[in-house]
Amino acid sequence: MDKIRVTVWHEFRHERHDGSAKDTYPNGIHAVIKEFLDKNDDMDVRIVCLDDPDQGLPDELLNNTDVLLWWGHGFHWEVKDELVDKIVDRVYTGGMGFIGLHSAHHSKPFRKLLGCTGNLEWGDSIREVVWNLCPTHPIAEGIPKAFELECDELYSEPFFIPKPDDLIFGGWFEHGNIFRSGCTWTRGLGKIFYFQPGHEDCRSFYNPYVQKIITNAVRWAKPADVKVINKCPYSGEGFLKMAEPKYFD
Amino acid sequence: MDKIRVTVWHEFRHERHDGSAKDTYPNGIHAVIKEFLDKNDDMDVRIVCLDDPDQGLPDELLNNTDVLLWWGHGFHWEVKDELVDKIVDRVYTGGMGFIGLHSAHHSKPFRKLLGCTGNLEWGDSIREVVWNLCPTHPIAEGIPKAFELECDELYSEPFFIPKPDDLIFGGWFEHGNIFRSGCTWTRGLGKIFYFQPGHEDCRSFYNPYVQKIITNAVRWAKPADVKVINKCPYSGEGFLKMAEPKYFD
Amino acid sequence: MDKIRVTVWHEFRHERHDGSAKDTYPNGIHAVIKEFLDKNDDMDVRIVCLDDPDQGLPDELLNNTDVLLWWGHGFHWEVKDELVDKIVDRVYTGGMGFIGLHSAHHSKPFRKLLGCTGNLEWGDSIREVVWNLCPTHPIAEGIPKAFELECDELYSEPFFIPKPDDLIFGGWFEHGNIFRSGCTWTRGLGKIFYFQPGHEDCRSFYNPYVQKIITNAVRWAKPADVKVINKCPYSGEGFLKMAEPKYFD
Amino acid sequence: MDKIRVTVWHEFRHERHDGSAKDTYPNGIHAVIKEFLDKNDDMDVRIVCLDDPDQGLPDELLNNTDVLLWWGHGFHWEVKDELVDKIVDRVYTGGMGFIGLHSAHHSKPFRKLLGCTGNLEWGDSIREVVWNLCPTHPIAEGIPKAFELECDELYSEPFFIPKPDDLIFGGWFEHGNIFRSGCTWTRGLGKIFYFQPGHEDCRSFYNPYVQKIITNAVRWAKPADVKVINKCPYSGEGFLKMAEPKYFD
Repeated sequence: MDKIRVTVWHEFRHERHDGSAKDTYPNGIHAVIKEFLDKNDDMDVRIVCLDDPDQGLPDELLNNTDVLLWWGHGFHWEVKDELVDKIVDRVYTGGMGFIGLHSAHHSKPFRKLLGCTGNLEWGDSIREVVWNLCPTHPIAEGIPKAFELECDELYSEPFFIPKPDDLIFGGWFEHGNIFRSGCTWTRGLGKIFYFQPGHEDCRSFYNPYVQKIITNAVRWAKPADVKVINKCPYSGEGFLKMAEPKYFD
Repeated sequence: MDKIRVTVWHEFRHERHDGSAKDTYPNGIHAVIKEFLDKNDDMDVRIVCLDDPDQGLPDELLNNTDVLLWWGHGFHWEVKDELVDKIVDRVYTGGMGFIGLHSAHHSKPFRKLLGCTGNLEWGDSIREVVWNLCPTHPIAEGIPKAFELECDELYSEPFFIPKPDDLIFGGWFEHGNIFRSGCTWTRGLGKIFYFQPGHEDCRSFYNPYVQKIITNAVRWAKPADVKVINKCPYSGEGFLKMAEPKYFD
Repeated sequence: MDKIRVTVWHEFRHERHDGSAKDTYPNGIHAVIKEFLDKNDDMDVRIVCLDDPDQGLPDELLNNTDVLLWWGHGFHWEVKDELVDKIVDRVYTGGMGFIGLHSAHHSKPFRKLLGCTGNLEWGDSIREVVWNLCPTHPIAEGIPKAFELECDELYSEPFFIPKPDDLIFGGWFEHGNIFRSGCTWTRGLGKIFYFQPGHEDCRSFYNPYVQKIITNAVRWAKPADVKVINKCPYSGEGFLKMAEPKYFD
Repeated sequence: MDKIRVTVWHEFRHERHDGSAKDTYPNGIHAVIKEFLDKNDDMDVRIVCLDDPDQGLPDELLNNTDVLLWWGHGFHWEVKDELVDKIVDRVYTGGMGFIGLHSAHHSKPFRKLLGCTGNLEWGDSIREVVWNLCPTHPIAEGIPKAFELECDELYSEPFFIPKPDDLIFGGWFEHGNIFRSGCTWTRGLGKIFYFQPGHEDCRSFYNPYVQKIITNAVRWAKPADVKVINKCPYSGEGFLKMAEPKYFD
């Protein structure tokens, strides 16, 4: 079987400038993600950053990516709209999976893919318990009913996202807040997963359950073997032309 | 009780140029929609067109619209992105309802609101039977299990939309095709309904069940009395600042 | 408009025998529910108990109930299967709304209506915060983003219920647990709402937000004006006979 | 990897008595299903019938079944309630997959598992087109946008089922009817799929797409590797006892 071509896109600013993030992830969050995904024989993992040429995603790479992981936090607005459009098209019509990590809830690709603001409330990092609400889902495989994170950034409801296809994880925060921490959606031919843990100065990406969930999600989000085309036969500017509807391929 | 402030936005090009559309809707589709909605004491209905100043939706009107109906077919690309952004924001954070009629599946506001291409397949107008799949939904109130339309434009699956919150109507077309003809979604504080019948040279908007469905949808889509704010406390460009998460308003 | 005919079914054992429950609800939980529902001009509220004749629900009453509220905790197994079958049929084919309160998650009607065990984990009463996850839903009307209950019985995920149509409220418990505290489903022609707060020795039913939610739920769950019949034309024992499928009523 | 232990339960009355069914499936529908499933190295397929001892499902077999396929049409009421309870428990708490074929919509296990009547309308066999509404779902793998069945029994909306987790296939019938022909649900630890084609005197089970769909569904419905227990810690008759809620296994 062909390997899943995984690309981890990382903002990679905090760990270069911020003492606490630097201490937690000396080589960047993307390096840690690559390290645990690389243990899987069925994955071929590449890491790229905002400050790389073409903001890390030249066409050649994007068009050869099966699953894109996205971590961004403080510099969402720097990502160019042209790149966002290419990512969205690759998900909708190419079936690329998209996994939004932590603050990706506010990233341009996440908002545009789903159609939402991604707004939420937040606060200082604090103890979190992640609950497994959908134990039969492939992304929850091997995950116990709950696990604890010593700390992660407090993300709280109300979280303004489209109703998830599946709500897989729910977060409990010591401060009194809850959050829909693991959610799936389908858009066009692509699958999307959002997962909340992963602040830059918390150690969540070293947690074995977090690693297992992200690993499961990569397998779940890989493009399906689809025989259906997600294109209008004739469209573009001008009057829509008549297509002959046939129900055989 | 305050009246529902309804605005019917209409492309209004076909009926001015195209003989068949002109014969079917001499004063435009919007005039017919206004006529049947005006029979309801709880609605205040305004009609506007693409060729009006500000493309029909100056801020003053948009900000005083509770439910926006949208019919566009051949000139989607003329609608300005700035207007689309305002419409989307009014739905997400203002709670305005949006009802997409017929070819609005490809309109800019519909695609951006939901996050999808809205792609489908289509063909010549043909006999349709509309089935009621969710008889307890407020939008299906008073609708029998099925009703017939002498003809409407053939819209066919695969229809590339996000999974609907509720699938209320399903269309059967004589040619061998089916379609998810009536679907709801929620985005931010706003409600969205898509309804497929309504080609410019078919008489569907004169059908009493179509009129009943659109009337029901206006009532369903009006803004809820919401005590929750759909805004991030601090956002914008630059690092996100810390908000104090409080669970009381 | 006709009033909504509401029947509150209550186990009413704890408050008669248990000091703490008796102190909290001297006349029973049902009396408190009736008291706050009675403030609504559009409702006609009756209260009945497990130890009443016909276990509180003679046919005459059941067949004239629009919305049935159900509170049971320790004596679920005493409710007769024949009565459960009648309740389920009244929901499925008569469109009666069913509101399960607190431990009704394990009641016979709840399990049979939905098809589930209703299993969960639980513990001592403790501080709870109820979060509003679906602010545009009619049941959430007037509810802030969260409200606090001084204490309620700890109910925890994993909660084995069918995926809700809408997940409206989520509970945070001080001990480290979360719970899907307010959920809706549709079955046949009837609507179902489950709401978790309401232990017999906690004061949740005096909370104005809890009262508002239950009041909203009664209005939401009342039978819709349905033109569709939820009966097979010919069934029963023996071979199924042919029905002529017609799509007009 | 261990093989998926598949059991095909078949009513097997029609093909023994009815000329047309006998001609179509001389050895019974179950024999044809076994034949095409046997081509998969990852499946171990057993066939059983209503008239076998223990109605085909002794405990030993049921408890060693990963996925149960069920075809019944005219003799649903003969299946004993005790057997139905065992099947439901095996799905809810054991994670067994359940695939209901054709008239299984009215079978006792299907109704009890989901909580519904399964009512629908029907008519003579007629030409059907099956549409693929969810092309990225594992059950739709390798299925084109639509395929045709020369004839199958007309099943029509309104179909009284709980809202599906995923609506994968939709049926078009020449007579003017549509049907939600392929639907999934989750209950407890088990997955459920319903698929409409398969009347006893139509040749649908010989259709390669029907065979592919059922094959896909078996793989999808096999029990997940679940670390979560679907049992209340203490329950049964008598007051529920206190459990200590722990979020670590």
